[in-house]
Amino acid sequence: MTYQAPVDDILHALKTAADLDQALAAGVYPGLDADTVRAIIEEAGNFGADVLAPLNWPADREGLKLNGSVVKTPAGFRDAYKKFAEGGWSALPCPEEYGGQGLPEVISSAVGEIWNSANLAFGLCPLLTQGAIHAIEAAGTSEMKSRFLPPMIAGTWTGTMNLTEPHAGSDLGVLRSKAERSGDGTYRITGTKIFITCGEHDMSENIIHLVLARLSDAPAGTRGISLFLVPKYLVNDDGSLGDRNDVICAGLEHKLGIHASPTCVMKFGEQGGAIGYLVGEENRGLATMFIMMNAARLAVGVQGVAICERATQRAVAYAKERRQGKSFMPASGDMSPIIEHADVRRMLLTMKALTQASRMICFATARALDDAHLASDAASKAGALSRAALLTPVAKAFSTDNGVEVASLGIQVHGGMGFVEETGAAQHLRDARILPIYEGTNGIQAIDLVMRKLPLDGGNAVISYFKELAGIAEAVRASNRADLGLTGKRLAAALAALGEATAWMGKALQTSPEAALAAATPYLRLFGLTAGGAYLAKGALNEAEGSRHVALARFYAENLLTQCPGLSDTVTNGDGSVLVEAHGAVFA
Amino acid sequence: MTYQAPVDDILHALKTAADLDQALAAGVYPGLDADTVRAIIEEAGNFGADVLAPLNWPADREGLKLNGSVVKTPAGFRDAYKKFAEGGWSALPCPEEYGGQGLPEVISSAVGEIWNSANLAFGLCPLLTQGAIHAIEAAGTSEMKSRFLPPMIAGTWTGTMNLTEPHAGSDLGVLRSKAERSGDGTYRITGTKIFITCGEHDMSENIIHLVLARLSDAPAGTRGISLFLVPKYLVNDDGSLGDRNDVICAGLEHKLGIHASPTCVMKFGEQGGAIGYLVGEENRGLATMFIMMNAARLAVGVQGVAICERATQRAVAYAKERRQGKSFMPASGDMSPIIEHADVRRMLLTMKALTQASRMICFATARALDDAHLASDAASKAGALSRAALLTPVAKAFSTDNGVEVASLGIQVHGGMGFVEETGAAQHLRDARILPIYEGTNGIQAIDLVMRKLPLDGGNAVISYFKELAGIAEAVRASNRADLGLTGKRLAAALAALGEATAWMGKALQTSPEAALAAATPYLRLFGLTAGGAYLAKGALNEAEGSRHVALARFYAENLLTQCPGLSDTVTNGDGSVLVEAHGAVFA
Repeated sequence: MTYQAPVDDILHALKTAADLDQALAAGVYPGLDADTVRAIIEEAGNFGADVLAPLNWPADREGLKLNGSVVKTPAGFRDAYKKFAEGGWSALPCPEEYGGQGLPEVISSAVGEIWNSANLAFGLCPLLTQGAIHAIEAAGTSEMKSRFLPPMIAGTWTGTMNLTEPHAGSDLGVLRSKAERSGDGTYRITGTKIFITCGEHDMSENIIHLVLARLSDAPAGTRGISLFLVPKYLVNDDGSLGDRNDVICAGLEHKLGIHASPTCVMKFGEQGGAIGYLVGEENRGLATMFIMMNAARLAVGVQGVAICERATQRAVAYAKERRQGKSFMPASGDMSPIIEHADVRRMLLTMKALTQASRMICFATARALDDAHLASDAASKAGALSRAALLTPVAKAFSTDNGVEVASLGIQVHGGMGFVEETGAAQHLRDARILPIYEGTNGIQAIDLVMRKLPLDGGNAVISYFKELAGIAEAVRASNRADLGLTGKRLAAALAALGEATAWMGKALQTSPEAALAAATPYLRLFGLTAGGAYLAKGALNEAEGSRHVALARFYAENLLTQCPGLSDTVTNGDGSVLVEAHGAVFA
Repeated sequence: MTYQAPVDDILHALKTAADLDQALAAGVYPGLDADTVRAIIEEAGNFGADVLAPLNWPADREGLKLNGSVVKTPAGFRDAYKKFAEGGWSALPCPEEYGGQGLPEVISSAVGEIWNSANLAFGLCPLLTQGAIHAIEAAGTSEMKSRFLPPMIAGTWTGTMNLTEPHAGSDLGVLRSKAERSGDGTYRITGTKIFITCGEHDMSENIIHLVLARLSDAPAGTRGISLFLVPKYLVNDDGSLGDRNDVICAGLEHKLGIHASPTCVMKFGEQGGAIGYLVGEENRGLATMFIMMNAARLAVGVQGVAICERATQRAVAYAKERRQGKSFMPASGDMSPIIEHADVRRMLLTMKALTQASRMICFATARALDDAHLASDAASKAGALSRAALLTPVAKAFSTDNGVEVASLGIQVHGGMGFVEETGAAQHLRDARILPIYEGTNGIQAIDLVMRKLPLDGGNAVISYFKELAGIAEAVRASNRADLGLTGKRLAAALAALGEATAWMGKALQTSPEAALAAATPYLRLFGLTAGGAYLAKGALNEAEGSRHVALARFYAENLLTQCPGLSDTVTNGDGSVLVEAHGAVFA
């Protein structure tokens, strides 16, 4: 089945969850108007559907080949990447100063969804390159920026993030890769990094690695980590490519999914040391890497949305075609399309509702990032920055957990055919399964939300956000719309549950941080479910009766928001039984 | 990592959920005692650990080969199957009259868990053979039984179920395979069947296919389906193998998981008609097939338990070894084993709790089947039969949904390593994903529970079951055990929620069956969660303080039973938003 970009759902999410119309009217995005936004998304949709989507399944089958240290990508990937760059898509969200188009995060997230829906393995390469551009822009010298950014933005070079080492995954403080000052202002980097996405491939002329390493005189732990730019090919003063640098791909992982995306073991300095350039200050590398990682976390959340969307489209198409049994629908013939069976419809509605809710949370996060970047006064900037920081872990974890759940439901809708690889539904689950893991596991996201984000601005970041959601619940109540069913009631109950759980968290952070950690994951789920329900309801309020936005908001409220009070019970009373197990009886 | 049979957890589940001690004392199982039960399970555990488990991963990698119509199984499978048969394991649950050991369903389920934990792809073949034996025993002529059962029970022949056709999956009424009377009492079978597990392989001397087909003068629909026994090799009067019958494997599916289990396209009668023998009466085949399928449904539920157990063992072992970060645990060094991190412990406890809850529900179902078979008076027999019928869809769907969830959590515990195939965690998710689909999708199970099982005995089957669960809740309350935390409260709330949802279902069945269908899946989840919580609590009551059974029951109650009231809200008020979508706005 073919992929079609859900242009209307994307625009609806931008309009409601990201208040795009309001932002355009208020001049938040100079030079942008509604027609241009639609035109960009439609054009991206065409590129995704015509160029990227047809490669998704064959590339998964073909996989990657490692010859020596050269990685060959599947048929069509090189050409597609060339077209992607030529079409200006790699430049879209980048600074105009270096050849970018300077389009905001809301647009970048919308088109990012399309690339990843069409082809998740392909979408990862621009995603990582974007992160590297962010980091260089934020912390590089102006000389570094003018040398490296233009070709990265043009898409002729790509970028990577080199964090993980075999013994240092979530815990970066213990990484061992070494950097030595060479005396000429450059550094020599040695060490092994694993799980490096697009560490080596044949789609671009050069690859710019951003690498975390430790100077020999650096303090221990996370305060002794520096960030280096290590190009695959050194770059001459005139911008032309020079010698091959001392970095190679020593292996490819054999993975459950994203078979077309190279996940590399990278060896730095096997010939004496890879030449690296310091990005930012010595020993302050982790802070810069976090700039990159935070942007990437939202982008991974958007990948969750993307896989939700693709799996849902496939399941809906199959359920409209496949006929089995007789449904209760009046017009149904001897054999009904299975979409008419109530239980299948429940699955499809769950998929669709989780997709749109995740999309809305991601786009709301993107809008906050834009405000943080574009707002004219310092207070608005700071408020928006806190909002973005608060929502980023939710956007990442909620959307990617949903990616797995929705892709799994997509298989179920197909019945036995879903388990057969040729159908394509199984690939979505295989691909989706990495999303809750990389760029910070979803457990790390939950801990980040609870330990670092709830306390932001003395708690005001979360308080002001909940006020906004409460305003939506109040508007639903005041609308008195019968076609929204119990939406108002369920949303109010969800917000009350979230408030209760948040108050508990506030206390736990003071008195028993380990209890907060034990309850972090159900808390994040409660947060995401509630926020998603609020956005869906907001998106229904101005729609006519019979609108699909109304039907979806109601379904979500009556079938998924119902989980919220129970989640609050788990948060506020479940930690004890997690911590009692510190005694270890169960796993003795 | 190696698999170790969880002998103590299995015995604990047998003792509590299946009341095995009481049954042994009451003489329900003549000739069986507690020592024998333990010895059988330990011996099975050794066979699973030593012979089957080491083949699990290499066989997944190697997969199957189809040469012409001959299927070659992975290295070691032939030999393992031979040892399995020689060890008497295939005969274990079979009638003594034909060479079986006549051991009851509770033992069969316990050892079935072990085979499937050790090697799910291997375990499927005996599972299907067992189903075929059941059907022949129930409906075959005595001549047929003496000819076919002994070698099937001895394990030299295996069996299959041939139901599905390309256009007839969940809806068997429309199947088209044909049977013609040949005049000599036999039939000629023609047609194509798909998704036939172990339809062809090299592990046994003969394969006995049970095939649903339609006589040309049969009524339309499900009342015109007959069941035939079609051997791969015809069998001479002296029991020796004769000519090759007209049935071949025309293809193997390329699947997400269970790569070592052949899923075959079977062609019957390409050379004029496969010789088949009628099992039971003409046009009454579906009833016999359901005997087979019901037994298989419990066995698939047990496969869910099995994959839960294996994934949990692997994740626990990894979490004890892998060190990252510093936990709050007092004794923790610079780098703690990740099992000490509260969020990881939450995942592992969830896995362990869902595993044991699923196991207990399956074993309770097995006990009911035994009572139905062995009880001396008609009333007890009938009551037990209803109990088994009621619990079978719950055992199948709840356990297999948990299989997918637990296997997915198992990947998450491993972080990035979980996504790498060599780790082995990913295989469990790939293998688990078929379980909610085959032997009746979990949606079909939910519909079966609601439409056919709740009304059993005028509702008394479910009423008497809930009374039993309420007795457990009351015993928890009366125990006043502080170490059970909120277990009593949460269990009472879950039972109240289940009662409310059941009352709603009772009304919906009368007035709006489509509403009952729309709510069936969350209803089954609510039923399974509550029953599992009750059994865990029952299993905790007689244990000392500090026991892992107490810790697990409390964790489950405080962290998972909390979902029950919300599920009841979904059941009783969620159907409207599913059915409103009959208008189709969302999927227009």
